[in-house]
Amino acid sequence: MAGDPLPSWRDGPTKSAITDFVASVSGAHGSPGVAPEERVAVFDNDGTLWCEKPLPIQLDFILRRLREMAEHQPELRERQPWKSAYDRDYAWLGAVLEAHYAGDDSDLGTVAAGILAAHGGISVDDFERQAGDFLDAAQHPTLGRRYIETAYAPMVELLDLLTSCGFTNYIVSGGGRDFMRPISQSVYAVPRERVIGSSTALTYEGDAAGGVIRRKPELDYIDDGAEKPVRIWSRTGRRPLLAAGNSNGDVPMLEFCSRADTPTFRLLVLHDDAEREFAYTAGAEAALSRAAADGWTVVSMRDDWLTVF
Amino acid sequence: MAGDPLPSWRDGPTKSAITDFVASVSGAHGSPGVAPEERVAVFDNDGTLWCEKPLPIQLDFILRRLREMAEHQPELRERQPWKSAYDRDYAWLGAVLEAHYAGDDSDLGTVAAGILAAHGGISVDDFERQAGDFLDAAQHPTLGRRYIETAYAPMVELLDLLTSCGFTNYIVSGGGRDFMRPISQSVYAVPRERVIGSSTALTYEGDAAGGVIRRKPELDYIDDGAEKPVRIWSRTGRRPLLAAGNSNGDVPMLEFCSRADTPTFRLLVLHDDAEREFAYTAGAEAALSRAAADGWTVVSMRDDWLTVF
Repeated sequence: MAGDPLPSWRDGPTKSAITDFVASVSGAHGSPGVAPEERVAVFDNDGTLWCEKPLPIQLDFILRRLREMAEHQPELRERQPWKSAYDRDYAWLGAVLEAHYAGDDSDLGTVAAGILAAHGGISVDDFERQAGDFLDAAQHPTLGRRYIETAYAPMVELLDLLTSCGFTNYIVSGGGRDFMRPISQSVYAVPRERVIGSSTALTYEGDAAGGVIRRKPELDYIDDGAEKPVRIWSRTGRRPLLAAGNSNGDVPMLEFCSRADTPTFRLLVLHDDAEREFAYTAGAEAALSRAAADGWTVVSMRDDWLTVF
Repeated sequence: MAGDPLPSWRDGPTKSAITDFVASVSGAHGSPGVAPEERVAVFDNDGTLWCEKPLPIQLDFILRRLREMAEHQPELRERQPWKSAYDRDYAWLGAVLEAHYAGDDSDLGTVAAGILAAHGGISVDDFERQAGDFLDAAQHPTLGRRYIETAYAPMVELLDLLTSCGFTNYIVSGGGRDFMRPISQSVYAVPRERVIGSSTALTYEGDAAGGVIRRKPELDYIDDGAEKPVRIWSRTGRRPLLAAGNSNGDVPMLEFCSRADTPTFRLLVLHDDAEREFAYTAGAEAALSRAAADGWTVVSMRDDWLTVF
């Protein structure tokens, strides 16, 4: 390979571990390698491929829609999650999310009901347009760039390196599959059919013009925690060779990235760079303990990345 | 292209319609064509790519397992669907299936409960081995060949032609996704990640050795009828350019194969060849009417195919 395929990564043990692994499974340096169709890599999205603070990007998209609803229907302004959206007071939502990452989902149903109502009934085509328009334009509140420009350059380089070594990359996100699809190709070079994520239930209504698929205001599944291996299997029928995440919800996916016949690579992005991004471990405690116990590779944003964006 | 890519198809309007369509969307003969990533083709499996008579192949697999269960648990021998399996009396099952295709699912729950019990609790790896072993060995009851040799040669040629013209083929079957995966590559050159089909609910159990995914004895979804467009969208995020089916359950999928910006191709396999395969239209009546009304291409096995297997 001409030049350094990972120029945004600082030379050191983390970078070497990645390049050594990729070389070995893709048959470089005389190693037998793994068959190309088995070279599957899976990446969490929020906090692993792009920024998830101060709130996940999709949540901003949903809050804007809730605010819009509350503007038209005043009675919603006193009900959560519309109240929080309308008042631009995100403390309530932040607390719900933090409780979720700590395993307490008691208020998650209220948020979920709002999320489901926000885009319930619209066609997948309309949803795609709304998500795409939002992602094309919306600015991150503090980083001085658009949300889609908060994708981590080192991770995009890793995706590219894997592709050039015959890997097939999938995004396996707790976020909405159909929210990411409009931008997965342009931001990550991951085609829309390789986006795995949470989804509402969908329904097909036939007509003479090819029918329409609509979002039902009910959840199909949340692609997080133990659901991630299930969704990876359902979609790919394979165990991944490389898995990257950043939070407790990624532990089962990283654990599932294990094969008896070949080494695998488990990578955890550690947010320890308050200067260039954010520093937090809330919601990642179990993942970090597991990484320490099982020798998963922890990537320090501060120390391992020369550039973040 | 060197030689005839569809040698098992008789020259005539059906064959020409297919080759003209493929040439036009893939940019041959100076036509602009459709972007390669948009060249998605979807195929029903049972009755479209391989034989589904006298019973769908997977049903034989399940019946053998039910028989095995009834051999070990005599009390099952008086309960449907174990009774039917144990007595090798398939009239009851045949009637349930025929009623299903005609829109009456009153006994389908009984069959479904048996099917779900047959492989409930086992790991997806064990299920894969059992399905693969069965498909490697089991013989079709009347055609004098193994089940996997009942794939239709003309349809395999069509799959190959599409692949050579930049299409991405998916199998979108009412049958079990995980049942077809062991053989989709070798029989159809469709990799396992491009098999869309029905599925039981799955559950992930973590452990230090990479965890295990098990089949729960409950249905996740049946990929038939209006569920087919939903599953195609969920998996690919695209509308197909070509869709092939043979029964009423394929109508929504063929209908969904429609775009305002480019021609699409809808193909219905008509089983009218009692000599070489089977002749039946039960379960295909609505599809055939729709084909006649909307100009979908009906493929006569008898007239359009020089060879069947």
